[in-house]
Amino acid sequence: MKKFVNDPKNFVPEMLEGLALAHPDTLRYVPAYNLIMRADAPRTDKVSIVQGSGSGHEPAHVMVVGRGLLDAACPGDVFAAPPMDYVYETTKLLATPKGVLLLVNNYTGDRMAFDMGKEMADADGLRTEILTVNDDVAVTDSLYTVGRRGVAGNFFVIKAVGAAAEQGAELDDLIRIGRKVNDVTRTMGVGLTACTPPAKGSPLFELGADEIEFGVGIHGEPGRERRRLTDADAIVDALLDAVVPDLPYKSGDRVALMINGLGGTPVSELYLLYRHAHQRLAERGIRVGRSYVNEYCTSLDMAGASLTLVRLDDEIETLLAAPADAPVNPF
Amino acid sequence: MKKFVNDPKNFVPEMLEGLALAHPDTLRYVPAYNLIMRADAPRTDKVSIVQGSGSGHEPAHVMVVGRGLLDAACPGDVFAAPPMDYVYETTKLLATPKGVLLLVNNYTGDRMAFDMGKEMADADGLRTEILTVNDDVAVTDSLYTVGRRGVAGNFFVIKAVGAAAEQGAELDDLIRIGRKVNDVTRTMGVGLTACTPPAKGSPLFELGADEIEFGVGIHGEPGRERRRLTDADAIVDALLDAVVPDLPYKSGDRVALMINGLGGTPVSELYLLYRHAHQRLAERGIRVGRSYVNEYCTSLDMAGASLTLVRLDDEIETLLAAPADAPVNPF
Repeated sequence: MKKFVNDPKNFVPEMLEGLALAHPDTLRYVPAYNLIMRADAPRTDKVSIVQGSGSGHEPAHVMVVGRGLLDAACPGDVFAAPPMDYVYETTKLLATPKGVLLLVNNYTGDRMAFDMGKEMADADGLRTEILTVNDDVAVTDSLYTVGRRGVAGNFFVIKAVGAAAEQGAELDDLIRIGRKVNDVTRTMGVGLTACTPPAKGSPLFELGADEIEFGVGIHGEPGRERRRLTDADAIVDALLDAVVPDLPYKSGDRVALMINGLGGTPVSELYLLYRHAHQRLAERGIRVGRSYVNEYCTSLDMAGASLTLVRLDDEIETLLAAPADAPVNPF
Repeated sequence: MKKFVNDPKNFVPEMLEGLALAHPDTLRYVPAYNLIMRADAPRTDKVSIVQGSGSGHEPAHVMVVGRGLLDAACPGDVFAAPPMDYVYETTKLLATPKGVLLLVNNYTGDRMAFDMGKEMADADGLRTEILTVNDDVAVTDSLYTVGRRGVAGNFFVIKAVGAAAEQGAELDDLIRIGRKVNDVTRTMGVGLTACTPPAKGSPLFELGADEIEFGVGIHGEPGRERRRLTDADAIVDALLDAVVPDLPYKSGDRVALMINGLGGTPVSELYLLYRHAHQRLAERGIRVGRSYVNEYCTSLDMAGASLTLVRLDDEIETLLAAPADAPVNPF
C-alpha cells in the first residue's frame, strides 16, 4: 500500500483534525462525534443542512461544509456509515428553531443510521427531515443498496438546498427543492483502477490491465459490466448513452455538466473528458449552462471519473449560482 | 496505460479546448499558440502576467489563469517547454503599455524558450521582464536544471504579483514583489509512484513496492535519495527537516503552509499530512497564517505530495489574501 497514512484506524480523525487546523476561522472539529461543522453553526435564522456518509469520498462531505453548503458533515470510517448515535448527537448540536435537513445518499447502512438518528432526535422534540439522493443510473440494486445509489450528483442537491437555506427558506421548501434537483440529476461513473482502503492495505478488487468497470460505484461496487479500455471519447459516448436517455435529457434542455474525478485521475484528463461531453451534448441540442470539472465525490485513490447532468430551470440555476465557500472546490 | 486519452499527441490541445469550453465567460483558447488567456486580456490598465511551462502539471499553469492570477498561460506539450515562437506570440498578444511579466520556473528548456521569446518581443519594442522561480530545496542541479528547480511554491509568486498587478502596480514593482516572495519560499516533494506520460504509455521510472523518491522533481526527476516507505508523520518530519533549515524558518515566523498533491494522491491524505506539519511547526514556534491543501502543481498521475513554506510579512500576506478566481482551486 503506497499511501500517506499512519495507523489506518486513525486515518479519518487525523484527516479531520488537519481539516480543522487548516480552516480555523470557518470550521470546527468535534472529535467525540467525528463531526465537522461551520464555526458559526448552528444559526438560529436558518435551517441547518447536515450530510453524513462513509469517509473516503473527500471532498464529500467534510470538505463541503461552509457558507451556502453544508452546516455540518458527520462521516463514518472509510466506506462505513456513521454510527446512529453520531447522527443523533450531530442533529442535536445543529438543531435550530427552523429545523435540520439530513441529506443521505442512498446506501442501506447510511439510511439505517440516519433513520435511527432522526427517530432519536424527533423523540427529543427536534424538527428534522431526511432527503435521500439517488442519482446513479448504473444499476438498480447493488452491493450496499436497495434502489439507485447516490453519487457525485449529490453536490447539486447540497448546493441548491444550501443556497436556499442561506436565504432563509423553510424546511418544507428545502425538501421540495432538494427533491426537485435530485429528480433531474443523473450520474454514471467508470473505474480504471481499484481503490485501496487504508485498513485493508491492498486493492479492493481486481481489474485487468486493459479492463474498466463501467458504471462503477464509489466504493468499488460492480457496475453494469467489465469493458475493454477504449479511448476517452468512446468512454464519454458510452456514459452519455447511459445518462441522457434515462431522464431523458432532450434537445432544447439546458444542463449543468459535471465531470467528477474519482481520486487518482488528474484534472487534465477530466477536462479532456469534459470537452467531448460538451461537444456531444451540443450535437444533441442540449446546452451546457454550468460546468463542474474537479473532484467532488471520490473513491479514495481510484483512477476514474463520473459524468453528471442536471436539467436546469431558472430556480435551480439561480441557486447553483449563489455564493458558496468550501475548503477545496470553488462552487 | 490506464488513462483517459485519445491520440496522445492531442492530449494537450484537447484538454485546453475542454478548459475553454467549460469557462467561456472567463477564458479564451488560441489553438495556434497553445494559449489560454483571460477573456478580458490584455487590459491596458495593468501589467499582463504570463507563465509557460510543460503540460502535465495541471492546474499549473493553464488553470491558474483568471482575475488576480495569470493573464495567460502558454504551455508546451507534456513535460516539454513551450516553443520560443509561442512565447513570442503570446507576449505580443498580451502586450500592454504597462508591460508583460514573464514567469518561468527554473528549467533549462523553459528558460531558453522564454529568453528567446523575450528577445524577439523586445526587438519589437515591447516592454517585458522575466522572473525566475526556484523554490525546490531537494537538489542543486538536476536532470533538466542548472540551479534549483521551480515547483509548487511558484503559486505564491503568481498570487502575489497577480494581486499587485490587479491593483495597478508597475512592472518594476512586480519584479520586486515576485523576487521577494520567491526568496522566502521553499518546497520539497516526495513521490510514492511514478507518473505515466500519455505519449510514453508506461511509467517514467521504476519505484519498488516499498520505495519512495525523496525530493522527487515534478517530471519524475530523481531527488535526494530512495527511501523506504514510512508512516505519513515520519515523511512530513523528513520534509520539514529539509525545508525549515534551508531559509531558515525560525521561531516567531509566521508562514503560509502548502501541502500540494502530485496528481494521484487523494485530498484526504493531503489533509493528514497537513495536520502533522501544522503541529510540528507550532512546536518550533512557527505559526501558520495561511493554509493551502490541494493540487496546485502536479506530475500527471503521480502519487505523492510536496510541502511548501512561505515566510509571511504584512505585504505578502495582504497580497495572498486578495481576491482571485481560477477554474479549479479557491485561492
